[in-house]
Amino acid sequence: MGVYGNREVAADILKRIWGGRGIFTCTVANTRTSTIPGVSDAGDTPELTMFTPAADAELLVNGKVTCMKGIPINPGGIPTPATLTKAALELSGMAYFIVNAGCEVEPFVPYFDMGGECGEKIVTGNSVKNVRKVYEKGYMLGESLARDHDYVIISESCAGGTTTALAVMMAMGVLKENLVSSSSPKNPKELKSRLVKEALSAAGIEPGELKDDPLRAIQCVGDPMMPANIGILCGAAKSVPVIVGGGTQLAAVMAGAKVLHPELVGNFMQGTTRWLMNDPNSSMSRIMDSISDRIPIVYANVDYTDSPYEGLQAYEWGFIKEGVGCGGASVGAIASSAGKITCADLVDRVHTIYRGIMGF
Amino acid sequence: MGVYGNREVAADILKRIWGGRGIFTCTVANTRTSTIPGVSDAGDTPELTMFTPAADAELLVNGKVTCMKGIPINPGGIPTPATLTKAALELSGMAYFIVNAGCEVEPFVPYFDMGGECGEKIVTGNSVKNVRKVYEKGYMLGESLARDHDYVIISESCAGGTTTALAVMMAMGVLKENLVSSSSPKNPKELKSRLVKEALSAAGIEPGELKDDPLRAIQCVGDPMMPANIGILCGAAKSVPVIVGGGTQLAAVMAGAKVLHPELVGNFMQGTTRWLMNDPNSSMSRIMDSISDRIPIVYANVDYTDSPYEGLQAYEWGFIKEGVGCGGASVGAIASSAGKITCADLVDRVHTIYRGIMGF
Repeated sequence: MGVYGNREVAADILKRIWGGRGIFTCTVANTRTSTIPGVSDAGDTPELTMFTPAADAELLVNGKVTCMKGIPINPGGIPTPATLTKAALELSGMAYFIVNAGCEVEPFVPYFDMGGECGEKIVTGNSVKNVRKVYEKGYMLGESLARDHDYVIISESCAGGTTTALAVMMAMGVLKENLVSSSSPKNPKELKSRLVKEALSAAGIEPGELKDDPLRAIQCVGDPMMPANIGILCGAAKSVPVIVGGGTQLAAVMAGAKVLHPELVGNFMQGTTRWLMNDPNSSMSRIMDSISDRIPIVYANVDYTDSPYEGLQAYEWGFIKEGVGCGGASVGAIASSAGKITCADLVDRVHTIYRGIMGF
Repeated sequence: MGVYGNREVAADILKRIWGGRGIFTCTVANTRTSTIPGVSDAGDTPELTMFTPAADAELLVNGKVTCMKGIPINPGGIPTPATLTKAALELSGMAYFIVNAGCEVEPFVPYFDMGGECGEKIVTGNSVKNVRKVYEKGYMLGESLARDHDYVIISESCAGGTTTALAVMMAMGVLKENLVSSSSPKNPKELKSRLVKEALSAAGIEPGELKDDPLRAIQCVGDPMMPANIGILCGAAKSVPVIVGGGTQLAAVMAGAKVLHPELVGNFMQGTTRWLMNDPNSSMSRIMDSISDRIPIVYANVDYTDSPYEGLQAYEWGFIKEGVGCGGASVGAIASSAGKITCADLVDRVHTIYRGIMGF
């Protein structure tokens, strides 16, 4: 594993969770922002991006997808990162649950309902309903999850979520430029920046104006995944360490949690992948630098270079990189097993899962 | 603890869970059957019985009720058995989650959504929607809960549920007479028997006709708690022992599980209270005799005789007796702690909780 940022905090958290029992959650939600052509590649077409969160949840829990045909893919057939998440959960034996923060397409699995609804396009300037209630339910859930586990992992499957993350972090003044990632190697940065500008304008918000009010920023220009995950993070981190599994989408969650509960900084870290850290078209490290110098990034060095499958090799070419908590689950599997599970083990298991899904 | 029925199975299960890590669930649901005057005392008025499941869930998770004023009480002010459940969960430190199988009044807590809806009055003969889907989601949840726990406890808060249980067990031919319990010491047996007769007639079912089809019996004359709990029981019991926490309502669940998955008998037992076992107006033991000779009843000898509070002493006079998994949670607390937690400890903690709630 690699570490970026505060090594002291990272070492302290890793020490406390090493060999411990973790619990993994994946928060699924929709935002209609993902259906704006060009925004999201997390789905074969803009319409199919709405099915991706539910399908990811089904794949994790059931090993098969029932809400649509096939599994979530990016255009070109690159498989969802849920394949890696599943490998990490299988190898570690970790408990895991789905959290539904607001899905238009419902996953056919048991999930924690947060009372949220599908988010609107951010250009409406009025994107997310029930933000405070979803946050409060998330907080209670975080407390419950922490009750008999040594640490909690949160994550997301929410197509379109890097655009909403950019919007929220601009509204909060965390970001002044577009540093967020994309599931495509051709990050549509101009389109995203334009949509965010429109969204802030529609909401009547100046960049940085909502520095102290992340929930309001989310209500205006965010997505439903955010208040749920900020809640879970804050509810859990007051008693156990939390791994925030994900990429730039989760940066908005961490920025929000830091404002609402600054006392919890030091008890959570980001868990992600080297694919994201190496992305030339985004900068996870610069985003985190601007949020806090006490939230380290720990990343798993999973490597698909030698994979016999082109769909997986594509991760090495800049496709996908993160999502469905694949990085956080990998870090968790390594930590829970006290290092016995290696990145090579994870790749082997991904191959088995991928062959099973594709019928090779 | 006392044991009724198959001591060999009871000893085997207790041995396997002794000192182990359990996880407790309480499945909440409404059936409009509870609003028929005289049917249910699980609420101060027939209308308030609809609030009882949500309020119990809130009390367990938050320690306070938000969906209504006060806490669930029986007429006369006798407090919900959730007070004992909470004591057992607090002392044991056990993880616990709420399962929503179909509530008209929603609890403001994070819960597992089973995709169910509020049940209709059983006299319609068409009481529960989505029975198979709720069962299937329950099954998946049972598998997930068993994933990293040594055993699972299921339970219910569903006012009106002894009447629906009687109806389902009559439809299945498990019962030929009215042996079910009531939260009142004046069990309204004639009313219940009459409603069940009407319900079976409305559904066009002869008693015993649905011997092999519990899900259809539930759809006709049951309540939404049942398919969820049958699912959780079956999904969990294939890998870990399950404590079925509750009274005669849960007998319908066990009868259904036995038909759908007979191979699991031997891996679950009922967990309840001595109040229920001693009830002169129902017969838990005779009901279980008619279901299987391999499903033992283990009951906690919690005793409120010397309680300084009349609301609690009333349990000794035949009020309430069971519900919200108070018996199963007590058995679980004793087992998880390898006997270190005693019934006296539970009573002490109930007093603390009760004083806190009542502001004494």
